Amino acid sequence: MEKNRLEAFSDGVLAIIITIMVLELKIPGGANLNNLRPLFPVFLSYVLSFLYIGIYWNNHHHLIKACRRVNGGILWANLHLLFWLSLFPFVTGWMGEHHFSSAPSALYGGVLLMAAVAYYILQSLIVAEQATDSKLAAAIGRDIKGKVSPVIYAAGIGLSFAVPWLAGALYVFVALMWLIPDRRIERLVREAAS
Amino acid sequence: MEKNRLEAFSDGVLAIIITIMVLELKIPGGANLNNLRPLFPVFLSYVLSFLYIGIYWNNHHHLIKACRRVNGGILWANLHLLFWLSLFPFVTGWMGEHHFSSAPSALYGGVLLMAAVAYYILQSLIVAEQATDSKLAAAIGRDIKGKVSPVIYAAGIGLSFAVPWLAGALYVFVALMWLIPDRRIERLVREAAS
Amino acid sequence: MEKNRLEAFSDGVLAIIITIMVLELKIPGGANLNNLRPLFPVFLSYVLSFLYIGIYWNNHHHLIKACRRVNGGILWANLHLLFWLSLFPFVTGWMGEHHFSSAPSALYGGVLLMAAVAYYILQSLIVAEQATDSKLAAAIGRDIKGKVSPVIYAAGIGLSFAVPWLAGALYVFVALMWLIPDRRIERLVREAAS
Amino acid sequence: MEKNRLEAFSDGVLAIIITIMVLELKIPGGANLNNLRPLFPVFLSYVLSFLYIGIYWNNHHHLIKACRRVNGGILWANLHLLFWLSLFPFVTGWMGEHHFSSAPSALYGGVLLMAAVAYYILQSLIVAEQATDSKLAAAIGRDIKGKVSPVIYAAGIGLSFAVPWLAGALYVFVALMWLIPDRRIERLVREAAS
Repeated sequence: MEKNRLEAFSDGVLAIIITIMVLELKIPGGANLNNLRPLFPVFLSYVLSFLYIGIYWNNHHHLIKACRRVNGGILWANLHLLFWLSLFPFVTGWMGEHHFSSAPSALYGGVLLMAAVAYYILQSLIVAEQATDSKLAAAIGRDIKGKVSPVIYAAGIGLSFAVPWLAGALYVFVALMWLIPDRRIERLVREAAS
Repeated sequence: MEKNRLEAFSDGVLAIIITIMVLELKIPGGANLNNLRPLFPVFLSYVLSFLYIGIYWNNHHHLIKACRRVNGGILWANLHLLFWLSLFPFVTGWMGEHHFSSAPSALYGGVLLMAAVAYYILQSLIVAEQATDSKLAAAIGRDIKGKVSPVIYAAGIGLSFAVPWLAGALYVFVALMWLIPDRRIERLVREAAS
Repeated sequence: MEKNRLEAFSDGVLAIIITIMVLELKIPGGANLNNLRPLFPVFLSYVLSFLYIGIYWNNHHHLIKACRRVNGGILWANLHLLFWLSLFPFVTGWMGEHHFSSAPSALYGGVLLMAAVAYYILQSLIVAEQATDSKLAAAIGRDIKGKVSPVIYAAGIGLSFAVPWLAGALYVFVALMWLIPDRRIERLVREAAS
Repeated sequence: MEKNRLEAFSDGVLAIIITIMVLELKIPGGANLNNLRPLFPVFLSYVLSFLYIGIYWNNHHHLIKACRRVNGGILWANLHLLFWLSLFPFVTGWMGEHHFSSAPSALYGGVLLMAAVAYYILQSLIVAEQATDSKLAAAIGRDIKGKVSPVIYAAGIGLSFAVPWLAGALYVFVALMWLIPDRRIERLVREAAS
């Protein structure tokens, strides 16, 4: 019962973030298909951010499902995560409108990085609170994806000033890594990390 | 319990989509009834899209009610459906502001078509997961409406470049087909399809 | 259980309507208290509409609480009510920005009237479905407020072209009639109606 | 059960307020990091308001959890609180865009003050309704933070016309006072108040 409201509030915020991002797709003045062309990079960045918010919603869903007790720290760690995710509409719009150029790509990576850190803090607090229940810790396991992602985000931030498109490609890669069912990808990541 | 959050998140996104669309009704600069006249096509497209989101909410409500187990595929198929529905405010505004002209009408039909495909995927995954429970499959039955709608959307897309108003009329027809209680309409559709 | 989602979706839409209306309070370019002055009528219309949405939420809450079975007609009657309420941000903004002048005041009254009609339809369908349970019908009773309100809205629409401020005053009066606890006001209304 | 919908609606409104505030972070026209500089005060005011909405959500969560019976007065006191919180996006944007200057800082403090008063009314009504259950009253205790905060807000409003930055500092101080776990801060506040 306690956690119902945590979920409801988080669902609300995530639902609004995902829907507000689409407002960056400004309605074109003309009525030809050509008028859609300048919107293409904005649309691409929207798709990428939609995927990320979807992934966060999915993972959050599983994490909170495994959480039995909620404390003050968990409530604030959750709000901290929502804070970084709430910046998605801004960074998505900036990156899309400026065609994945350097500074916007770096800032996008920065928000991805901070959200990953916030998720890690939330996950750690939940695991600590559920101490007697070792199932959650086991399910998270070595959490390779969770550890590799921030490293790739950091690489993306650095690269965005040298080869901007590569930064975008890295962000897409991480999204796909979370999206595609686990086994094979995880093995790939494990091999690349070893 | 598992599916509560799927419903809550979907409800949130659908509620926001439906409400954000009204922002395309820009407040007129003048205070006369005449100032409302240019808003009329935007209002019409708003009503049409409100109906469609209402129909999707209604069908989604019944579909998820019949769903007992949720898996990863269902979660993502649901997000995929929400993605296409999230483009409604954009295509509704474009079509309304350009008086149901060719390209916007075609794009509107394209989003309708993709949403219908996404709904079909979601429905198929849910039926597959509920294998032992044949009630859902029976309730969906031959799903004539679900199969006819994408065909009409496709026809609308094609027609929108020749007779734009006919495309709009087809989209209205499909909405009414879903809206009006089943028996007679279904018989009509069945006859037209045979 | 059935009606949970009806409530959740309605809550979502009402919450968004109430919050989106505040976007019509455009942030002034200057930083003096004087810069707030032109916003005053917009603020007044916001307060009035906030009250109305609050009243609808409150009444909807009680109505659905008394509802045991939900059917297709109820779902669509609910969406129909939400449709008219979704036009509140538009008519509120128009009326506020044009200082409660004739046409905007009439349109505001028109939306109030249609929302009242939609609420009446929803209520009737719910009472009909709960046939065996006479409690709800008894609680609604003679529903004097529900019957008087549309008459006053209609009067407001007519008056708005003659004495615009009186239309606004009538809308405020109806809001207060619903807001203030029942007994005395109801007696007043009953006397005025007899 | 009764209070579920109160929570759901409040969660919805708070979630939307928190997410709509980010729309004041207007996407810059240029793609350099320098283009972010003018956004810095807007970002600061966003962070402060995010904290406040988070604190209200947190406290509201605990307050409603302790509430067993809901009555009409509580429903309206809750809407009254949401009304003042709904003005956050407006006052946050005004304060941020004008670099925490006098009038916007005073208005921000005014909304903080009114929200605190509204919360106090809601809390009092809930305690009164739960008369037989003395736990809630005990938990709230002397409610020092709740009593000190409005005094500091009022001081902030006054100071904003003399030393604007000090007003902002006071608002930050109150937010931190609520954020940081209780014991030590409460002792500090108690000493300062004695």
